[in-house]
Amino acid sequence: MKKVNESVIEELLSQMTLEEKIGLIHGNGIFRSGGVERLGIPSLKMSDGPMGVRREFEDNRWFLACKTDDYVSYLPSNSAIAATWNKDLAYTSGQVLGSEARGRGKDVILAPGINIKRSPLCGRNFEYMSEDPKLIEELASFMIQGIQENDVAACVKHFAVNNQETDRLAVDTDLEDRALFEIYLPGFKAAIKNGESYSIMGAYNKFRGAQCCENSYLLGTILREEWEYDGTIISDWGGVHDTKAAANSPLDIEMDVKPNFDEYNMANPLLEAVHRNEISEAEIDKKVRNILRLMLRLKMIGEESEQRESGTYNMISHQQEILKVARESIILLKNEEDRLPLKKNIKKLAVIGQNANILHAAGGGSAEVKALYEISPLLGIRMELGGNTEVTYRPGYYVSYQKVFDIIGYQETSTDVMAERAKRKQVWLELEKEGKEKRKAEEKRLREEAVLLARETEDVILVVGLDHHQDMEGRDRKRYELPYAQEKLIEEVLDANPNTILVVCAGSPVSMQKFSNKAKTIVWSYYNGMQGGKALADVLFGIVNPSGKLPESMPKELNDCPAHKFGEFGTKGSVYYNEGIMVGYRYYDTENITPEFCFGHGLSYTNFTYKNLTVRANKGKGAFLSFSIRNTGKTAGAETIQVYVSDPVCSVKRPIHELKGFTKVFLQPGEEKELMMELKPSAFTYYCTESKKFVLEGGEFIIEVGSSSRDIRLSKMVRIE
Amino acid sequence: MKKVNESVIEELLSQMTLEEKIGLIHGNGIFRSGGVERLGIPSLKMSDGPMGVRREFEDNRWFLACKTDDYVSYLPSNSAIAATWNKDLAYTSGQVLGSEARGRGKDVILAPGINIKRSPLCGRNFEYMSEDPKLIEELASFMIQGIQENDVAACVKHFAVNNQETDRLAVDTDLEDRALFEIYLPGFKAAIKNGESYSIMGAYNKFRGAQCCENSYLLGTILREEWEYDGTIISDWGGVHDTKAAANSPLDIEMDVKPNFDEYNMANPLLEAVHRNEISEAEIDKKVRNILRLMLRLKMIGEESEQRESGTYNMISHQQEILKVARESIILLKNEEDRLPLKKNIKKLAVIGQNANILHAAGGGSAEVKALYEISPLLGIRMELGGNTEVTYRPGYYVSYQKVFDIIGYQETSTDVMAERAKRKQVWLELEKEGKEKRKAEEKRLREEAVLLARETEDVILVVGLDHHQDMEGRDRKRYELPYAQEKLIEEVLDANPNTILVVCAGSPVSMQKFSNKAKTIVWSYYNGMQGGKALADVLFGIVNPSGKLPESMPKELNDCPAHKFGEFGTKGSVYYNEGIMVGYRYYDTENITPEFCFGHGLSYTNFTYKNLTVRANKGKGAFLSFSIRNTGKTAGAETIQVYVSDPVCSVKRPIHELKGFTKVFLQPGEEKELMMELKPSAFTYYCTESKKFVLEGGEFIIEVGSSSRDIRLSKMVRIE
Repeated sequence: MKKVNESVIEELLSQMTLEEKIGLIHGNGIFRSGGVERLGIPSLKMSDGPMGVRREFEDNRWFLACKTDDYVSYLPSNSAIAATWNKDLAYTSGQVLGSEARGRGKDVILAPGINIKRSPLCGRNFEYMSEDPKLIEELASFMIQGIQENDVAACVKHFAVNNQETDRLAVDTDLEDRALFEIYLPGFKAAIKNGESYSIMGAYNKFRGAQCCENSYLLGTILREEWEYDGTIISDWGGVHDTKAAANSPLDIEMDVKPNFDEYNMANPLLEAVHRNEISEAEIDKKVRNILRLMLRLKMIGEESEQRESGTYNMISHQQEILKVARESIILLKNEEDRLPLKKNIKKLAVIGQNANILHAAGGGSAEVKALYEISPLLGIRMELGGNTEVTYRPGYYVSYQKVFDIIGYQETSTDVMAERAKRKQVWLELEKEGKEKRKAEEKRLREEAVLLARETEDVILVVGLDHHQDMEGRDRKRYELPYAQEKLIEEVLDANPNTILVVCAGSPVSMQKFSNKAKTIVWSYYNGMQGGKALADVLFGIVNPSGKLPESMPKELNDCPAHKFGEFGTKGSVYYNEGIMVGYRYYDTENITPEFCFGHGLSYTNFTYKNLTVRANKGKGAFLSFSIRNTGKTAGAETIQVYVSDPVCSVKRPIHELKGFTKVFLQPGEEKELMMELKPSAFTYYCTESKKFVLEGGEFIIEVGSSSRDIRLSKMVRIE
Repeated sequence: MKKVNESVIEELLSQMTLEEKIGLIHGNGIFRSGGVERLGIPSLKMSDGPMGVRREFEDNRWFLACKTDDYVSYLPSNSAIAATWNKDLAYTSGQVLGSEARGRGKDVILAPGINIKRSPLCGRNFEYMSEDPKLIEELASFMIQGIQENDVAACVKHFAVNNQETDRLAVDTDLEDRALFEIYLPGFKAAIKNGESYSIMGAYNKFRGAQCCENSYLLGTILREEWEYDGTIISDWGGVHDTKAAANSPLDIEMDVKPNFDEYNMANPLLEAVHRNEISEAEIDKKVRNILRLMLRLKMIGEESEQRESGTYNMISHQQEILKVARESIILLKNEEDRLPLKKNIKKLAVIGQNANILHAAGGGSAEVKALYEISPLLGIRMELGGNTEVTYRPGYYVSYQKVFDIIGYQETSTDVMAERAKRKQVWLELEKEGKEKRKAEEKRLREEAVLLARETEDVILVVGLDHHQDMEGRDRKRYELPYAQEKLIEEVLDANPNTILVVCAGSPVSMQKFSNKAKTIVWSYYNGMQGGKALADVLFGIVNPSGKLPESMPKELNDCPAHKFGEFGTKGSVYYNEGIMVGYRYYDTENITPEFCFGHGLSYTNFTYKNLTVRANKGKGAFLSFSIRNTGKTAGAETIQVYVSDPVCSVKRPIHELKGFTKVFLQPGEEKELMMELKPSAFTYYCTESKKFVLEGGEFIIEVGSSSRDIRLSKMVRIE
């Protein structure tokens, strides 16, 4: 972590009154803590979120400020960034996000979100990266570095074991230590140790009985002591429940959504507790030190304050970077008969499905973005093809109050938008209730006209999926299946035109059993930012060769997912992670449960051959490996090569293999590259619950090099001591 | 003009029934003429307009189609393009507009608008280029070439002598022949002869008693005969009034806004007239030939139809080009004490004035654009400065139903937008009527808070001007002065802070007498497209050195303007242009009337010295001149060098000088360039009303080289025979 002049901190601290100190450690505006004007200590200004800097709120209450200068660039979601498997692009995304945050005058941007995707149903999955800690470790670290180059702090979130939205403020989560250390914490550790995240956000939930934001074990033992963290710990908004617990925990700043700032737990109640000698001022001093240290790191105070980056937003260059990320995040799941890419000079094209036309930026909860613009798939396709192709669009299915977001989601300049939004929602809900029959009839009509079009048109693109009525903060999805009678639509459209290109846009896996065999081609896009529709069109029409890979497994059935099969998920009160370390492919591959599409999967318009794997042990320091990869097709393209380690004989049960490295290479047709990779000793360890540390149990390990977790191309044994 | 295989035309024509022919020559949709499916002749699809491809309308009635795939790039207005004085950028603008038009499936884009800016009050001035024919000739030609590279037709408009909006469908205009040929027609002639515009639009008004769209003199004698035009003549929408007159005139296509297509003058009424032998089928054949020729030129039919460009829209690259144009269009009118550029690292900035915050794309009439986005000056400034500067915005004055455009102008996805818009306007109007007192009080409050801010802040930017409630189709402005009590605001803000940077955003000159002396710095921006606010900020903060020059004079008083002083303007029934050729600087410079800012004026952050002018006659073929220009300042920058010709002794009265050439050069600090220019014989001629042609009266001419019409740096006498 960046070193600062600690004497400045002590000097300032020595001049502060108790009241001033307390002012610093709790929200004094909806998105800022207090400052001390007399000492030149500013407020710390924070903003959501991972997909772009959130619009302005009124300073002192949870109301939209309805400004006209807070449009911003809308970035691909963290799940999309993870699907690129490209560290450079994670870094680029961070740079753009950081620049925009600083440009908007922020000190802390509440990103990235890196919680483990334990179940496809978690409402915030779209904000998270992966089911695998290694992928998270690498991408989060690079993203944080990109953000912080702009003198704005990343705030990695939500620490920790925060994997569902149901009962999110109170649910008590627990799991075995091995899962905690092998699966749920490594991403955060890397964000702190490698990414050097200047701040971290405590989660809403309880962990082992104590609120995460007041949790001495998570915040103290793990974060401050084991990881030696001297950054700033910020609560999620409303995550603090008890003055004493919070004050005595390593939490630094209490944030909330309530307007009575003086009544926050760490405001007047804390002041009174100190006066009553129930809490020592020394505890408060610790927090203030961490906050002042953050301010020095960000050049908000101190000698470097004239050199602080000013940032910028909405630059055309940002949009270009965002397009690059979006292009690499799209995953070609299936491409039988090489249906894709489509030819650009087709005369007619049918685009079916509301998700081709829905704008997503303005939804999802705190990740909502007031985007400068958003290119929908339909618009992107029209832009790509231009005027020689007749594109006919049919919605195909009925979406209830979609318009609430679409029309007034983020284009307001008046101050009554929230009321307007609520009112419209109400109107729609009533209309829906009254008119269930009518809605059913409409649903049928929309499907029939779409099917008719699919039958009549040679080239059909069907865009289905989820939107931010399912992928959203505060609520987990109820069903694994697609909503809005989309399954029926897909089936009928595929019957009408078996060559239909199926595109699924969603933030989390959905059940594809009903159509995955029938569809010859399936393309996957996460919420993909302002250029998402253009990026999709670029892939569909071969301007870009797809190179995204799944950062998570897509199980056939919800009950295949270990969180649901063995564990508890989405329950109130408490939830225990019975599946332990067997998350995602660790479970599917070990138990040989075939998923719909496996972790790391993603096709290309070209082919890659792998060869010449050599592995040698590095004298007690892990192993070196080398291999070659060749583009044997006719199209330039990129492949993400994944390295898994398997420990066939071990005193504890281990997953059949675990991702321990990956690299993405771009190859021209016929080009071959030799790649080298180092596996550190940590790549071979497991967490030993008895000794409470990671242990390398010497012996033979198998090194696998592959194109996905279930498409291993090369493997070699190596002896590690 | 591009040659086509005329035998294809004759072959098709020979196969067509009279009914089919008539289908081609009138609107069969709101924005398309009919086709003949059986012969593979498609509809001709047209779209407004000069600042971007207009949103989709329903095919068969004047209702918004409310699609979601018709957002487009929003280009700088033609007045802004003219202010660049840069032919390359006019070409670039055309390329972008043409690509977007073709990308949206259009065959004809109704642009550019090139009518002479005769009075500051003409409602459509913002759509036009200049008061000077030479500037129009050059820029329009390049723009048209750029458009048509995309296999889409430009449709230069409005032909001709269409210089006011009052009584626009019926007003009868007249003027002396010399003014017609020297001032009002040369732009059109160049658009046809040099730009090779595939189509041209007849104007709404009458000319010398006959509707322009049915006008045998304008369309026949001038356009078809003298200029040998074989392109397509399209009526303005509703510009045709009489079946017989239109059918017998060279007009090719009658367009209108009415939904009863069969009842158009050139539809069933024409069919009946032919059956009654009142009109010969041969007249209709002529029109059909011109339309089929257009279709061949556009590769809509014929052998080349597989090679037609497909176009594209909303590309990031388009936005980049648009930013370039916008940057060069901004004009620095005044910069005492070098107040500009402002420093980027200022701590505080006040931005005052609604026009910093109003979005303009969605207004103005047929030039409205459903922009993908629009960067306002306020947003552009915030983007430029980033997070280290505290920007405080105050509206400063009261704008009535601004929100009508701002909120629902172009973000709709529902079908009831027009009704909604009308309703909101009604609400506002009633509110205004009821609450005149209240409005006055609000006006005062807004001004006072702005003035207070100006007093307290060192750096103040005041953005005033017009919006599309003044600069709009169908209505001329009523007053030369700024609306909304802005003059009072400007005066008080300048009193409170004399260093205030004044920015005027408008489509036409406004009275500046009340503040032009007091303001140290004045920056001018026309409606400047989607990146307009960014371009403005780039100039204000010195990222870009301003290089725009006024393409029109800005008189001190309306009554200084010859159209008002001598002529008739804005009257109903008829209007005579008594001022004749004495338009703009031709009048002000000849009669020594000092304008507020003169034609061709525009400052830079650097200085340019002119030297070494040599002029030599070219043996009866005009003259050659050469001169040097040097950047003697410390900033790289561009200068537009203007060449005026003066004929001190002539048998007719001539303007004291006339623009006959210009060139724009970019120079690094200290860099010097030698420039050469040719003046053709036409640069020395005038239109002789007796011989009815242009005449070069031999003798001595003065060649002036200058930085504006009133800042002549070098001059030389030359004898031309």
